[in-house]
Amino acid sequence: MRIAIDAMGGDNAPDAIIAGCLKALDDINNDSLVLIGDEAVVKQKLGPADRWQKRIELVHAPESIPMDAPPVEGLRRMRNSSINIMSKLAAERSVDVVISAGNTGACVAACQMRMRLLPGVQRPGILVVLPTFQGPLTLLDVGANIAPKASHLHQYALMGAVFTRQVLNVANPRVGLISIGQEDAKGNELVKKVNQLLWDDPNVNFIGNVEPREVLNRPADVIVCDGFVGNVILKLTEGIAEGLFKAILAELAQIKPDMIEHFRPVINSLYAKHDYNEYGGAPLLGVDGICIICHGSSDPRAIRNAILRARQQAQLDINQKIAEQIASVPVDES
Amino acid sequence: MRIAIDAMGGDNAPDAIIAGCLKALDDINNDSLVLIGDEAVVKQKLGPADRWQKRIELVHAPESIPMDAPPVEGLRRMRNSSINIMSKLAAERSVDVVISAGNTGACVAACQMRMRLLPGVQRPGILVVLPTFQGPLTLLDVGANIAPKASHLHQYALMGAVFTRQVLNVANPRVGLISIGQEDAKGNELVKKVNQLLWDDPNVNFIGNVEPREVLNRPADVIVCDGFVGNVILKLTEGIAEGLFKAILAELAQIKPDMIEHFRPVINSLYAKHDYNEYGGAPLLGVDGICIICHGSSDPRAIRNAILRARQQAQLDINQKIAEQIASVPVDES
Repeated sequence: MRIAIDAMGGDNAPDAIIAGCLKALDDINNDSLVLIGDEAVVKQKLGPADRWQKRIELVHAPESIPMDAPPVEGLRRMRNSSINIMSKLAAERSVDVVISAGNTGACVAACQMRMRLLPGVQRPGILVVLPTFQGPLTLLDVGANIAPKASHLHQYALMGAVFTRQVLNVANPRVGLISIGQEDAKGNELVKKVNQLLWDDPNVNFIGNVEPREVLNRPADVIVCDGFVGNVILKLTEGIAEGLFKAILAELAQIKPDMIEHFRPVINSLYAKHDYNEYGGAPLLGVDGICIICHGSSDPRAIRNAILRARQQAQLDINQKIAEQIASVPVDES
Repeated sequence: MRIAIDAMGGDNAPDAIIAGCLKALDDINNDSLVLIGDEAVVKQKLGPADRWQKRIELVHAPESIPMDAPPVEGLRRMRNSSINIMSKLAAERSVDVVISAGNTGACVAACQMRMRLLPGVQRPGILVVLPTFQGPLTLLDVGANIAPKASHLHQYALMGAVFTRQVLNVANPRVGLISIGQEDAKGNELVKKVNQLLWDDPNVNFIGNVEPREVLNRPADVIVCDGFVGNVILKLTEGIAEGLFKAILAELAQIKPDMIEHFRPVINSLYAKHDYNEYGGAPLLGVDGICIICHGSSDPRAIRNAILRARQQAQLDINQKIAEQIASVPVDES
């Protein structure tokens, strides 16, 4: 298997990316990595050639799309960017997997355009494995599709359930739909339509609407929502967790300063148990190939884990199973 | 001033509501309360008449709309519900303020229908004062309007700024718009339109898009979003804070059980500083009258605080100032 990685994408690129690749080498058997980026920089950062030269191939990409660039414009202006070149390699089938911690919108757009979609899939969606206090759940879409139709969310339910069954080993994943009330009639027009589609589809083990307040109690195995709302949920969760730990430490400093050193291990242990780096990236489901979007702030461990998860996804043949599931469920375009 | 309270609405009604009213009596000078609900029950819960009879008037309402009933259907079927009767009293101007911890949708619909809107206001919006680690901010809409037009959000920015200036004493409130990226081009079609409207309006001290991750760092004084997204933000924040404290206590129990008793006061102190009960309810801005929506789980203190906040809103003449602001800014219906 050939696994391509965008060496230039992410807040800590290229250092964290390259360190993550080197970390992964011991765990990927005979598979090889293809690092795409400024060749001279990447080579220098990789260090002594005997550590990597038979396992890592370099592909030169002189440009890199900035994290905050408008995606489509970035792709158009920077034809020789790492994301552009990476998605071309994937389209030519000269790599089996692409991984980027760079500009998410650009990566989604490039993969969608060049790799094409699995037969019958209307739109790709980004799935995250969200660590909750009751174990992991999958949430999609978290930002690939911010103006979806109801049929797109229906397909996300199907694709998310396949992923959850195969990767998280949940036999018959319960699917929930984010809304602002559990009752079927609660929600905006999109949510109400999707609610009906999911109840009507015997292929989906739908449990109904789930409320945001319940998400961290893991009310379902798969939770579906539009990409704008999913992105809000993901980012707000990260922000609140960070902020709350900071607030607790500040409060301790004020009222029980001697407890701080005892409390830090508790936070560290909680972080270790609920760390998104563990899952190392979010698959873009629905594209004809394997594309993993990493968090911009990914550290070397997250990159290593993304590489291992991508291999697992390929080995479990998730895409074949998604294609079969989508083919068996007629979904109209409404 | 006559302040009407729905005695039957809320998870802890009527007990918590009635206890909150009795608690408030000492702080409202010569204003009087009008409790609407099952008269026999309310009378019995109020206890000895000498405590309240000159200050609290009872209005009988034999029905109560359940918390999870479809709002419009609930209002139609239960003509003699506390919410229906309360909104009629407000429409007749026989009470100055209405307060309910009951079915939010029903309360919004009843007030919007019967009290009418302030001149020029297109849609009412629910504003919450959100306690953050850096002080309070206001967030609207959190659920009155889940399919808004861009012009509604523009008006929410104007109304939210008036409220924040008058009630939180912020001289020139900075207004932010929730999106999934800070750049103006990020977001769905609605958000992009609103972003443009707010930059174009010199009456709004717009600072641009704000990301959900930053909300608890108080990036702006007023944050605007559609009602679906606002409700998700509000409920998710509550759920995560609750869940995280539970997780910390569980973790402590496992690795440092002797610290639990020292840690509880820290949590309590944080809760006290960031407690939504302090703000005691969320005003429905834009209606021609004062309507305060309380959290379903309101305790007596929250109800008392809602009564005091409602008086403050009336005394500061917020509605007059909102009407002036709206009149000075032509907003088209697009």
